[in-house]
Amino acid sequence: MKIAIIGTGIVGRTLALALQGAGHDVVVGTRDPEETGKREAWSGLGVPLRPLGTVAADADLVVNATNGQASVAALGEVGSADLAGKVVLDVANPLDFSQGFPPTLTVKDTDSLAEQIQRAFPEARVVKSLNTVTASVMVAPGTVGDGDTTIFAAGDDVAARQQVVGLLRELGWRDVVELDGLHNARGLEMWMPLWVRLMGALGTAEFNIKLVR
Amino acid sequence: MKIAIIGTGIVGRTLALALQGAGHDVVVGTRDPEETGKREAWSGLGVPLRPLGTVAADADLVVNATNGQASVAALGEVGSADLAGKVVLDVANPLDFSQGFPPTLTVKDTDSLAEQIQRAFPEARVVKSLNTVTASVMVAPGTVGDGDTTIFAAGDDVAARQQVVGLLRELGWRDVVELDGLHNARGLEMWMPLWVRLMGALGTAEFNIKLVR
Repeated sequence: MKIAIIGTGIVGRTLALALQGAGHDVVVGTRDPEETGKREAWSGLGVPLRPLGTVAADADLVVNATNGQASVAALGEVGSADLAGKVVLDVANPLDFSQGFPPTLTVKDTDSLAEQIQRAFPEARVVKSLNTVTASVMVAPGTVGDGDTTIFAAGDDVAARQQVVGLLRELGWRDVVELDGLHNARGLEMWMPLWVRLMGALGTAEFNIKLVR
Repeated sequence: MKIAIIGTGIVGRTLALALQGAGHDVVVGTRDPEETGKREAWSGLGVPLRPLGTVAADADLVVNATNGQASVAALGEVGSADLAGKVVLDVANPLDFSQGFPPTLTVKDTDSLAEQIQRAFPEARVVKSLNTVTASVMVAPGTVGDGDTTIFAAGDDVAARQQVVGLLRELGWRDVVELDGLHNARGLEMWMPLWVRLMGALGTAEFNIKLVR
């Protein structure tokens, strides 16, 4: 699959390497590919960097791995036309660290970042997933406990959700809970305030939950 | 231990029976004990009902099992004097069903119901716990999966938290995660928007999460 990843932070880098390793044709979008390519994290990595305005032109699937507060603007630079009809896997969280730790959420309860993105790009097929775990766990669920913790996927478009579930399985996720409707992203994003506190209490981000039923 | 439970809904009733069954001296507070005693759920149950204004006078520990939107008012009827110095175990959630299902939260992110209660009754020793599961699971964690799912306890007062942890162990909880500081209740209450959606997706409230680390 041709996958365009938007965002050059640790999440974008981790997903790019893992999805490329899984055999996908991955490109990463950034405002200034030349500048990004000079950064230690990206230098010699072997993952093609492209300007935001062209990165998604040929993509089958677009991953939003930007900072939640910058997501709509960054996807705006990618452009509505290049997002139209495509699955947009939104792994971002609308965290606000301006008042320190723990962060608050910039949107919640009656709306979500995923829904903001969907409204901004109505022809995109937005699916929320992977935002409930840290980057290293996103691509290696087997490293947490017995490797069978739970990941969620929420979205309005069933076929888009199925495509994301397929990617999740490639990454090693076995217990995938699908939530029908993108409004469910409110619940997934509102898990973050507990997640950040558990990270503090546990002293590590390498944890997850298992839904036991 | 002398335990006063505030609230005569399913949560109050379930906790009253379980804590009485565990050997505690349990009384339940209600605005009109005579009227409540006539209700099918309470008639002949063998749990003493007392008016809110006297129910906590002799209590060692007070449980807030009221509707979250009514909690501060109900505890106000119990009275600051009778709450002073006591552990107040807050199991309530600030759910707002006025716009239908799924509910939203009346307080979140930068504040919590538990903190509202603490501010209203500064001499009480508030501990948030058990709000993350349905009533039947609160008192019978062994019924979910292998019986070893996770419960949380958050509060400022370490001794109060320890007293609650003791009660949790009596109820059968083995994996208790303590969070230092009542502000952590924000995370525990903000788990609810995902919980209610999972309840919808799973078709049951009899589930929980295991924190895997």
